[in-house]
Amino acid sequence: MNAPDPRLSINQATLKHADLATALRATADAGVQAIGLWREPVNEVGLDVAAQMLTDSGLRFTTHCRGGFFTLAEGAARRAAIDDNRRAIEETATLAAAAADGSTSILVLVAGGLPEGSRDIVGARERVRDALGELAPDAAASGVTLAIEPLHPMYVTDRAVVSTLGQALDLAADFDPAVVGVTVDTFHVFWDPDVLSQIARAGREGRIATYQVCDWQTPLAADVLLSRHYMGEGVIDFGSLTRAVEETGYTGDIEVEIFNADVWASAPDDVVRRTSDAFSATVSPHLAAAAARTP
Amino acid sequence: MNAPDPRLSINQATLKHADLATALRATADAGVQAIGLWREPVNEVGLDVAAQMLTDSGLRFTTHCRGGFFTLAEGAARRAAIDDNRRAIEETATLAAAAADGSTSILVLVAGGLPEGSRDIVGARERVRDALGELAPDAAASGVTLAIEPLHPMYVTDRAVVSTLGQALDLAADFDPAVVGVTVDTFHVFWDPDVLSQIARAGREGRIATYQVCDWQTPLAADVLLSRHYMGEGVIDFGSLTRAVEETGYTGDIEVEIFNADVWASAPDDVVRRTSDAFSATVSPHLAAAAARTP
Repeated sequence: MNAPDPRLSINQATLKHADLATALRATADAGVQAIGLWREPVNEVGLDVAAQMLTDSGLRFTTHCRGGFFTLAEGAARRAAIDDNRRAIEETATLAAAAADGSTSILVLVAGGLPEGSRDIVGARERVRDALGELAPDAAASGVTLAIEPLHPMYVTDRAVVSTLGQALDLAADFDPAVVGVTVDTFHVFWDPDVLSQIARAGREGRIATYQVCDWQTPLAADVLLSRHYMGEGVIDFGSLTRAVEETGYTGDIEVEIFNADVWASAPDDVVRRTSDAFSATVSPHLAAAAARTP
Repeated sequence: MNAPDPRLSINQATLKHADLATALRATADAGVQAIGLWREPVNEVGLDVAAQMLTDSGLRFTTHCRGGFFTLAEGAARRAAIDDNRRAIEETATLAAAAADGSTSILVLVAGGLPEGSRDIVGARERVRDALGELAPDAAASGVTLAIEPLHPMYVTDRAVVSTLGQALDLAADFDPAVVGVTVDTFHVFWDPDVLSQIARAGREGRIATYQVCDWQTPLAADVLLSRHYMGEGVIDFGSLTRAVEETGYTGDIEVEIFNADVWASAPDDVVRRTSDAFSATVSPHLAAAAARTP
């Protein structure tokens, strides 16, 4: 492999079956400079231990995945979800503080789908807005940006009632951009006829918290959640999307997050290498500032 | 079963494995008044024979399915696709003229996906616009309405680069509403945060050529094309969508189109009965004019 792009970040979900130690080691060994973590493997070792491991890795921390899932109607389960999001905010701040300079304190939010037995998608979306209102003060106090992630509309009822970048920006509009932003993930938004104008809008409004990439291929996997692919193996045009994000002035790290049974069955070191090569081939050529950045 | 709703139309795809004679008989025998046909079973018996069979059935004809698939770049294959669409327009006019009073002359258009090896979704969409420009004079001359069908974004690359009602209306805007309209299919559009406002817009612009219903359920079928269900078996709110369509002044027939391996494996008479019962339970209560209409 060539030297990894200095802006590449490995989202830990790409190494689904690796524990935190393995994910950090494989990422750093490959010369990748940044990582996005998931709550489960962090909590498996405990937050303080995870923070120390992250410090020791020398990696930048790019996002914590994930909060959200707060479409339930008021009641004990909703309270538990809100409380769990508060813990996720704390974890995010702790990990960001422990990680290398240039880290960002970003919690990715997946809205949640329709509650069991409900057909009220409009109501579910209102409850997302309400939850943001409850959590924004905590995020602000902790210096954490909540990054609403619109998910592809095929996940609308079982995973995220927020389906477009425009919708995510409308939800974010009530809040300080330092506190509530959006996640731009190519897999989830490339299909949208308005995607380029909404990326530009997200930039104007200061809302692009994180940019994530992976590819789309058909036929979709039987479990559509696992349909994400290495960049270049599908049909997404990373040029137009990446240039649109760059043109907003986004200079942050770029995560690769791949849910894919074959990728998960591969050795973590191989996955990091393939991810880096795919990134260099498909994303790096479109990064305006890449040459100017000191690795 | 109760008497079918007078506005119910059975889309022949719901009876996938029935030939034309069986589909017409099962629909009429159940007391359903209208049917939407597919090109393949029509051409299996020949257009003139099909037209006579349709006349003899006494059914109204609601749509012909389907034209489109014209995202290819210029060349022989694109020319063949355009010519095939011209034949589909002629078929539509012939069938509509042969069918009972109250029939409509509507050809449903599915745009097509990305050509093999292409990542240029923007270019594919431009070629859809170009094809409409080529076909509109033929449709106008034949008195046929081309009904652009936005398909769910999970089909964007392999089936239809037109994914939202707003996008379909933007494409239609260059043309006379009598010549180019849209298909509103609940399965394809229910997820869209803008769906209600875009239905209202479609009404204002005179573009709702046909309204189709079926339900959405997760997990999606392994072949996502076959994920359509009887109304009431999934999570779509037929009340808000149907009322929005009614409020535009739409008084046309409403098709049920279900792609589902279990439904297709059932006896056609059973499928028509279940479809009618599901329609009466989920759609009929929201039809403002139902009581005023003479069956």
